[in-house]
Amino acid sequence: MTASPAAPSASLDPEHLAAGILAGNRATLARAITLVESRKREHRDVARALLTRLMPHTGKAHRVGITGVPGVGKSTTIDTLGSNLTAAGHRVAVLAVDPSSTRTGGSILGDKTRMAQLAVDPRAYIRPSPSAGTLGGVAAKTRETMLLCEAAGFDVILVETVGIGQSETTVAEMVDFFLVLMLPGAGDELQGIKKGVLEIADLIAVNKADGDGAIRARSAASDYRSALHILSPRSPTWSPPVVTISGLANEGLSEMWAQVELHRLKMQATGEWASRRASQQVAWMWDMLQQRLMEALTREPARAARIKALEADVREGRVPASAAVEDIAGLMGL
Amino acid sequence: MTASPAAPSASLDPEHLAAGILAGNRATLARAITLVESRKREHRDVARALLTRLMPHTGKAHRVGITGVPGVGKSTTIDTLGSNLTAAGHRVAVLAVDPSSTRTGGSILGDKTRMAQLAVDPRAYIRPSPSAGTLGGVAAKTRETMLLCEAAGFDVILVETVGIGQSETTVAEMVDFFLVLMLPGAGDELQGIKKGVLEIADLIAVNKADGDGAIRARSAASDYRSALHILSPRSPTWSPPVVTISGLANEGLSEMWAQVELHRLKMQATGEWASRRASQQVAWMWDMLQQRLMEALTREPARAARIKALEADVREGRVPASAAVEDIAGLMGL
Repeated sequence: MTASPAAPSASLDPEHLAAGILAGNRATLARAITLVESRKREHRDVARALLTRLMPHTGKAHRVGITGVPGVGKSTTIDTLGSNLTAAGHRVAVLAVDPSSTRTGGSILGDKTRMAQLAVDPRAYIRPSPSAGTLGGVAAKTRETMLLCEAAGFDVILVETVGIGQSETTVAEMVDFFLVLMLPGAGDELQGIKKGVLEIADLIAVNKADGDGAIRARSAASDYRSALHILSPRSPTWSPPVVTISGLANEGLSEMWAQVELHRLKMQATGEWASRRASQQVAWMWDMLQQRLMEALTREPARAARIKALEADVREGRVPASAAVEDIAGLMGL
Repeated sequence: MTASPAAPSASLDPEHLAAGILAGNRATLARAITLVESRKREHRDVARALLTRLMPHTGKAHRVGITGVPGVGKSTTIDTLGSNLTAAGHRVAVLAVDPSSTRTGGSILGDKTRMAQLAVDPRAYIRPSPSAGTLGGVAAKTRETMLLCEAAGFDVILVETVGIGQSETTVAEMVDFFLVLMLPGAGDELQGIKKGVLEIADLIAVNKADGDGAIRARSAASDYRSALHILSPRSPTWSPPVVTISGLANEGLSEMWAQVELHRLKMQATGEWASRRASQQVAWMWDMLQQRLMEALTREPARAARIKALEADVREGRVPASAAVEDIAGLMGL
């Protein structure tokens, strides 16, 4: 199986690709993902036709986002968690959203190396982040890759992200459950939790709760519990728990996953599961459309230059924003 | 002075209005705000021409947002704080962003009644929220009203908001400093801070720290300090302080305002003051433009119906979002 960006010459027939993916052919899946990630117009057209065909077979996976600062043990934890899940009969796809990544043969190798068990697990599929671009662009490709993996029969999708810019929020908006890994430590070490991450966490797991770290991890967990206590939960149905784990020693991971499962049962019972997914889809559609309109707006060089000048005027306080908007709308013939 | 929505017949000449505002004529200011808030196209055109003329005279005020749940003592605190400021030589405008408000004579009267001192203070100007509409629409009008007040010589603008929907975030994006009022109380009472409010606060003031409330307020302040401690501040230059005040007894308000002033000095020294204002302006321009484009997109009934159907398909998972976007872009001729 290869996932080289040069691959999609073999077949550009959506029907053929769909059949291969539904049959669980990994080479076809890799080829389809490459089409989804391609910047070429004809590839994107095929990808869209393929996705439209596959829609009835998507949506059945448990979508879980995972974040944490570098050094928190994300790869090790995903490797162990994913292996536990495949051992329990699940099929696990690991995707990533990293707008700073540049795709090379080396980075794919890197991804396989850092998750040594999953990389050779026939029930797992690891796909690195689409190559560098805007966060919106990278995320859109990962969303579509997620749909392809679901159609290929993966029933757990783990979407990993590094905490760059708004990437956590973006990933939280494409998954059912958002898991935040934290380092043990207390007091000052707790400082610097990124803005907004506590608010979107469905669970906080303090990692490295092994050996000497166990006591510090429990102390950190207690501090995080206090912090969460004063924030109103995202859903009345779910108060985010704080657990301690060791990804390395495979400790606490099954209890942690039990919480992920419990969350699904509760959210399905209230209907929040389906309604959250529906609004995620619709919000995504409008985001893409706005992006598309903005691109159209700046495609023509003279217009792009005029808009840039107006933006500078607004930035410097020379022109009120409302007047600039009227002016640009006029350029668009609106 | 009246601020009736029916007023703008007297003069629709931007030059004349601008001269009146710059001369500090309150009746002219009220008339101009009514033009800004009007839905009529000719009024909006005059308002835009007026704002363009006034731009060089705007931007000099200290813009401070204030939020807090009903019952926290927002009106009393603003009344006392504003009176302190006018006594110190400032000219204070109090604006509001409340997307749920419906403008009536009664609500204006209500606003004057609930701030009894400021209502009769010749150095203060109180303007209720623009009448009900989308948050974006209400906020846009308040932003423009803020500019008019600055041109009229008000050097402190207090923008009040009730905590409905995203109104706090929206107000935080139009001011230099965002002040969050909290009720005293500890433990369970601390629960339910609205998502994101801690992150955008530049200062938390625990109100009603008078009489029996003093001890409880200090205890609450300590809890808020711990909570803020684990969040990374919005700016490396400013760690949001937590203070206790009594708006009713006028206690702690001068210390609180000293923090607001200190924040300005620090942010001006690093250049963050100017850069934050510039990015607020530009972000606002793009927001308005996107809104304008979306309106254009749905103006034609057949197209609006088609878009609505596509949105439903996406919501139900029948059509991939990317395909729906292509379809809509096609309808737009993009």
